Amino acid sequence: MRVAVLGVGLIGGSIGLAARRRLGAEVTGFDRDADVLARALEVGAIDRSAESLAEAVAAADAVFCAGPVAALPTLAAEALEASGEDAVVTDVGSTKRQLADAIAAHPQGSRFIGGHPLAGAETDGVENARAELFEGARWYLTPDDRSQGVLFDRLHRLLADIGARPQAIDAAEHDRAMATISHLPHVLANVLVNRVADGLSGESGRGLEVGRSFRDTTRVAGANPAVWADILSANGATVADEIDVVIERLRESASLLREGDREAVERWQAGAREDRLAIAAAELSGGELHELRLAVENRPGTVAEIALALGKAGVNIEDMGLFPASDRRTGAISLWIAGSAEAERAAEVVGELGHGVSIVAGGA
Amino acid sequence: MRVAVLGVGLIGGSIGLAARRRLGAEVTGFDRDADVLARALEVGAIDRSAESLAEAVAAADAVFCAGPVAALPTLAAEALEASGEDAVVTDVGSTKRQLADAIAAHPQGSRFIGGHPLAGAETDGVENARAELFEGARWYLTPDDRSQGVLFDRLHRLLADIGARPQAIDAAEHDRAMATISHLPHVLANVLVNRVADGLSGESGRGLEVGRSFRDTTRVAGANPAVWADILSANGATVADEIDVVIERLRESASLLREGDREAVERWQAGAREDRLAIAAAELSGGELHELRLAVENRPGTVAEIALALGKAGVNIEDMGLFPASDRRTGAISLWIAGSAEAERAAEVVGELGHGVSIVAGGA
Repeated sequence: MRVAVLGVGLIGGSIGLAARRRLGAEVTGFDRDADVLARALEVGAIDRSAESLAEAVAAADAVFCAGPVAALPTLAAEALEASGEDAVVTDVGSTKRQLADAIAAHPQGSRFIGGHPLAGAETDGVENARAELFEGARWYLTPDDRSQGVLFDRLHRLLADIGARPQAIDAAEHDRAMATISHLPHVLANVLVNRVADGLSGESGRGLEVGRSFRDTTRVAGANPAVWADILSANGATVADEIDVVIERLRESASLLREGDREAVERWQAGAREDRLAIAAAELSGGELHELRLAVENRPGTVAEIALALGKAGVNIEDMGLFPASDRRTGAISLWIAGSAEAERAAEVVGELGHGVSIVAGGA
Repeated sequence: MRVAVLGVGLIGGSIGLAARRRLGAEVTGFDRDADVLARALEVGAIDRSAESLAEAVAAADAVFCAGPVAALPTLAAEALEASGEDAVVTDVGSTKRQLADAIAAHPQGSRFIGGHPLAGAETDGVENARAELFEGARWYLTPDDRSQGVLFDRLHRLLADIGARPQAIDAAEHDRAMATISHLPHVLANVLVNRVADGLSGESGRGLEVGRSFRDTTRVAGANPAVWADILSANGATVADEIDVVIERLRESASLLREGDREAVERWQAGAREDRLAIAAAELSGGELHELRLAVENRPGTVAEIALALGKAGVNIEDMGLFPASDRRTGAISLWIAGSAEAERAAEVVGELGHGVSIVAGGA
């Protein structure tokens, strides 16, 4: 396996380290910043550094675009143009729709599959890269109806092999979900520190002391301004819509508090407790692995369609394998799903898509 | 020193433990729940349990009302009536104005000084009480113009001796500050989990995974509903006003994001970063201790007035001592202040109040 990493910071560097150590991959790196590239080589994040993007991706089986969000459309297009016909190109950006739109018309677009690992660290830079960064981390993939199944399969497996838990999701849906669970917390944190900092300028703000609830709620306030300006701009309209929803609910909260009905406030508070527990429960998954065998037509988009339908149904694909038949027009897919209820659900979803499916008893 | 603790849960129990271990105080406890009272005795949070509130406070030098916020007005009034003429009565509630209003007309009100330690734990109950709970913790005190200086002094010293950092603040100002730095984060967390939990009911919510920023921002969502219904109700109007301010800023944020001016978004993000750093810097204090000696008239309210003025100026009183002159009409106060700039500022503030003041060179 030959992997190219374009942009060797914390994420790109960690991909390199993980691919080298856990897959025995040969990793070529490129970065516009020559110092960063040299450090990546020093810390062993890459096997060798390339002089150009084209050189880095020329022989790669998989190309990771790990530059800033705003640079990704150009970076991904260049990677598609310079890489071989069998190379899968992906990225690690926190927003996906803008990039998907940019690549939509690209003649090589069927080789691009957007990605977004839910992993990071307080401290960026390749010095802080580590092979375990993605261990157990959700890694969203956004294939579309052009995506080549065999390339999706390769990428999915590669990510699972470096310890991540890939899941397919529609690009626009990804951005809506991120607007709520990631971008909105950043906006609220910003607004909150801004409000409190105002008080500091007044007499009464001196000697101010905030508690743990404030520190936790605002930990992400003002996170890396360059990075977050990109993210919030790329997903701006969706985040703004989310803010509107929050404003409406805050208005209701203010009314509730002004009414002074203590029992109603307690019900509201108890409801929030249930919500928090429901979110925590939804995150838990697991169980014994079950194998699903699918008979499919071997056409572009099939695997993406299945992966997206399962992702939408909340079923996680722990592992997958593609087995093209000798006629190259049909084939089999094996999907490994954790938990028997999830496997049943997966079989149902796949059946609805019109594929023959069976659950292989026993697990891995 | 004899201490009475009314309500022996996490906070009351920890006060008992700390007073016993660090002050060698004799601690009497009372709780409406006989089981809780028995456990408090078992874990050594109190020396003995009283059969009634009156019995508990009869011989106390200091009485801590540590019941639920909604119960405090009654509890404090009963404690004032049953305690001796030289006993200071305080509380540990998270809101202060409602209680101050309730006690304002009480004939024994000059012996009451409201309090609020910024300490707590995920796990309540006397089983989790510990003597170190208040170590280094800010402990707000809300004396008013009726408060007896000698009682404020005793309470201040007691709290400092159990490891806390007492600071005087006006009750209404305390509640405004708490609305922003404590109650508002809870409201925002509630609204955020509520929004995300909505999504769980839809198809796309299955398999949802939230990141660390979401978990941090919503850690306090739905915190103990009974306790927080009390707090949010007691401070409802002020919190609602804060929500209105936040709504206005969120509206501005949404506009900013819709405008799509990436540079403006980066400036906004960088501003939030500066705000967060400014808040962190404001929390840092320290430096060598300086002693201020004040000549004062020995009348009720003098110490409270000085403590409040210093609190307002952001100067923390690390320790204090009262030295009444033999005529009982005048006296001296020593205040220990950390940091020479703070000591200078303190001298200025005290001078403006019309007291003679000198800074004693050297420190403790």
